[in-house]
Amino acid sequence: MTRKELFENIKKKQSFLCVGLDTDLKKIPEFLLKEEDPIFAFNKAIIDATAPYCVAYKPNLAFYEAFGVKGMIAFEKTVKYLQENYPDQFIIADAKRGDIGNTSKMYARTFFGEYNVDALTVAPYMGEDSVTPFLEGLAEGEEATKNHWVILLALTSNKGSFDFQLTEDKDGERLFEKVIRKSQEWGNDGNMMYVVGATRGEMFKDIRKVAPKAFLLVPGIGAQGGSLEEVCKYGMIEDCGLLVNSSRAIIYADKTENFAAVAAEKAREVQQQMAQLMQRLEVRG
Amino acid sequence: MTRKELFENIKKKQSFLCVGLDTDLKKIPEFLLKEEDPIFAFNKAIIDATAPYCVAYKPNLAFYEAFGVKGMIAFEKTVKYLQENYPDQFIIADAKRGDIGNTSKMYARTFFGEYNVDALTVAPYMGEDSVTPFLEGLAEGEEATKNHWVILLALTSNKGSFDFQLTEDKDGERLFEKVIRKSQEWGNDGNMMYVVGATRGEMFKDIRKVAPKAFLLVPGIGAQGGSLEEVCKYGMIEDCGLLVNSSRAIIYADKTENFAAVAAEKAREVQQQMAQLMQRLEVRG
Repeated sequence: MTRKELFENIKKKQSFLCVGLDTDLKKIPEFLLKEEDPIFAFNKAIIDATAPYCVAYKPNLAFYEAFGVKGMIAFEKTVKYLQENYPDQFIIADAKRGDIGNTSKMYARTFFGEYNVDALTVAPYMGEDSVTPFLEGLAEGEEATKNHWVILLALTSNKGSFDFQLTEDKDGERLFEKVIRKSQEWGNDGNMMYVVGATRGEMFKDIRKVAPKAFLLVPGIGAQGGSLEEVCKYGMIEDCGLLVNSSRAIIYADKTENFAAVAAEKAREVQQQMAQLMQRLEVRG
Repeated sequence: MTRKELFENIKKKQSFLCVGLDTDLKKIPEFLLKEEDPIFAFNKAIIDATAPYCVAYKPNLAFYEAFGVKGMIAFEKTVKYLQENYPDQFIIADAKRGDIGNTSKMYARTFFGEYNVDALTVAPYMGEDSVTPFLEGLAEGEEATKNHWVILLALTSNKGSFDFQLTEDKDGERLFEKVIRKSQEWGNDGNMMYVVGATRGEMFKDIRKVAPKAFLLVPGIGAQGGSLEEVCKYGMIEDCGLLVNSSRAIIYADKTENFAAVAAEKAREVQQQMAQLMQRLEVRG
């Protein structure tokens, strides 16, 4: 999906919500466990219920891999279900991959070739040649069938983000700023986004100094406690430039037979806040 | 596997070689493609041929994931085959995972619970709470059945390692040094190793200043061009403290029906160099 298409969907739905599909057999409603594929059954119900209120879905690979081959089948089915039924949804495989060149190529082949998701989260520690294979498309002999995105970890929302990401170098540049600055030599605002946690809203001011026009994927709203209003105040740009993710606060809001309807209600609440913020901040594109 | 057991195997075999199973359908001998599971068939032949000369195997997850569900089945079969037939081999899942706490927990469950490998490579960018779940064992309700290791990326062997890993902070500490220093507060020399590339042998002097007793997993010998002798000169310690990985130079040394025998020969050559270096450097334990 191109940036323009993504923004069209954001305007149409008045939402920049991404629903995180962190589907855990230990947390989904018990009655689903008797289904043949409980993970997919849960995802399908959540997707059907929340799709009107969001523009993106982000399955987190860890949760699927944890259930081995069955989990990966559920992941594949979820991606296909989205592609066939909700082609306007931006699909992010949250895998935080990143390895030496020939290995990153293999991952690119998997996620952009095999699954053909829109975007993949990538860890920056190993530098340029671990990231560029995702931007170059696929391994020899294969073709990318659409515009793909790298979403590079910059400033994450967890406590451990303080350990290394905020380390200042001799010139006062912090590691997350260096990651953003350097990586803009590898990609551009049409194929690279950044993960920036919502837990420190005022940091978006600093992010916008180094990435004035990049789209940002923002976790940490909801269960992790970040403020949507602050994120928008400092992070929103002309064509929105934000995808705000919420996982647990939406998908596990209720554990009864009513779970999908409650998830829809929670997603709708966020969407309405987003619509207001978009109007107030005059996002027009 | 405990550190003591690992060193016993190193002494017994006079080898600290780790064979990397970067198994790629595009690179294995063509005649294997008619097998029902060509990836596993290749791995089994390589393992049977090289096991006398190495102490560890490192399947790289990217290569298995690239072939979807089939690839993951081949990975599982490879791990089981090693566990059942070569219980003295140290198994490293090279996955470079690392995510927020609850997600890292899921990965720990997968690799240490489900597959029960000895070690997992982990990326440090997200800091402490992305690493400690791997050290704490498994998610609630599950038990680790043996001693598990985190192998944290410190100084990798690729070109991109210059981008961020060598960045000096205000006090002159480089990022890879900070990663090693800080992470030693989270783990210890019995459950944490570091990835240190062989391409810059003299760097092992600096590594040994911050991690005098840690085991190091060393890629970059062979296809990537690092010198085994230099690595040992600066990196070897009393109980060896090194696992040196070679992937392509061993497993793809020959593409005929004779591939396994040639791989064995290449592994034996490395083992013999290692035996000499261990004697010269008086590794006794």
